[in-house]
Amino acid sequence: MTTSLNALEALATTRAIRRYTDEPVAPDDLATMTFAATRAPTGSNRQNYRLLVLTEGPRAAKAKALLGDVARANWAAKQDNDGYRTGSGADPTSPKARMAASMQRYVDNFEKIPLVVLPCIRRRHDSLIDGASIYPACQNLLIAARALGYGGVLTGWHGPISDELHELLDIPADVDIAATITIGRPAGNHGPVRRRPLTELVSVDAWDETAAWVVDPPGTAYTQAGPPKTS
Amino acid sequence: MTTSLNALEALATTRAIRRYTDEPVAPDDLATMTFAATRAPTGSNRQNYRLLVLTEGPRAAKAKALLGDVARANWAAKQDNDGYRTGSGADPTSPKARMAASMQRYVDNFEKIPLVVLPCIRRRHDSLIDGASIYPACQNLLIAARALGYGGVLTGWHGPISDELHELLDIPADVDIAATITIGRPAGNHGPVRRRPLTELVSVDAWDETAAWVVDPPGTAYTQAGPPKTS
Repeated sequence: MTTSLNALEALATTRAIRRYTDEPVAPDDLATMTFAATRAPTGSNRQNYRLLVLTEGPRAAKAKALLGDVARANWAAKQDNDGYRTGSGADPTSPKARMAASMQRYVDNFEKIPLVVLPCIRRRHDSLIDGASIYPACQNLLIAARALGYGGVLTGWHGPISDELHELLDIPADVDIAATITIGRPAGNHGPVRRRPLTELVSVDAWDETAAWVVDPPGTAYTQAGPPKTS
Repeated sequence: MTTSLNALEALATTRAIRRYTDEPVAPDDLATMTFAATRAPTGSNRQNYRLLVLTEGPRAAKAKALLGDVARANWAAKQDNDGYRTGSGADPTSPKARMAASMQRYVDNFEKIPLVVLPCIRRRHDSLIDGASIYPACQNLLIAARALGYGGVLTGWHGPISDELHELLDIPADVDIAATITIGRPAGNHGPVRRRPLTELVSVDAWDETAAWVVDPPGTAYTQAGPPKTS
């Protein structure tokens, strides 16, 4: 499949998508997405990672069930910790409540998600820089998915069950799972990508300095940083 | 500036570029690149990072000089460690020797690089997953640069001088520098992105399993993984 989506437009419109139709991801699209993902850079081009793609085999189904259980438990805890049930969260029409409803639907239907990818890395440094050899590939995967009309989101659901997933999927002990990425054909409508104003995310020449060019495009919509804590 | 580059084409053709003309990066392009970078996801949309863009101020020049010194020292060591001077490296027409010459030129001219970006993050987990909130933005930055006709590369040159850079650039103590990204208008010709065959980078349903769709596009050129060790 080809796409006519412009590169800058793809970067600006790739947002977290958590509602999917039941449509499976076509094999040709899996090939296109994973090829695009693996064009991302790694330190010294070592390519010391693997994208473990969970499709429809019995072990994939079991892995999705394990991840779904974690997702539901973690989301229940996060709702309390991050104030999703209080303040405006009590009003079902509020953005907070709609975000919560979207998350609930996401975790409730985890096992039906068409595609789950576990990017795995053999770490070399035990430091932050290891991530530079795996998360660029994750981002390429999500942008390629967007270009092909899919949507996805990068999560950390694997964290508490990393050992079980290693055993189930024969992942070597010296390999870390870096993310749990879910992908599918978007269901319903999705809003724009929203961030903080560019002046808060970009500094020029020193931490607390800026420049005249640090300006969002006209019409940019903003959001607060992080989950709702108040109101 | 706009671009007509197709999204999938951009992902497939964004490679490490280390030779730049002296042309500065236009302010409008800086805005476009950093806006695109900051559309990347972060955990819970916390946006707990900042892109520190080094342009032309005196502190930027001093930071580039510090980074240049590290780059030259580290490259000298890496040439020995990674066998760049032995085997085919002795033949100046070999791919290994040409890669070495390109790296030497890169580090020798570090101070003249038009744009250096230090992506900085306030870590939350002290684990690999922190990287998921900064390296996607780095990859977006590099893809946007490519879309605008620039090229760049993500490096770890800041590593040994992180403390000096913190002091020089007023970076808070609880913030980590995640990368040193250099960007400029490419000089000369550049080859294609080359990786290992897709079958080595993608697994399906379990670590050592594959599927019929795991196939590179026709004509894909491969490379070995990592720096030259032999021949």
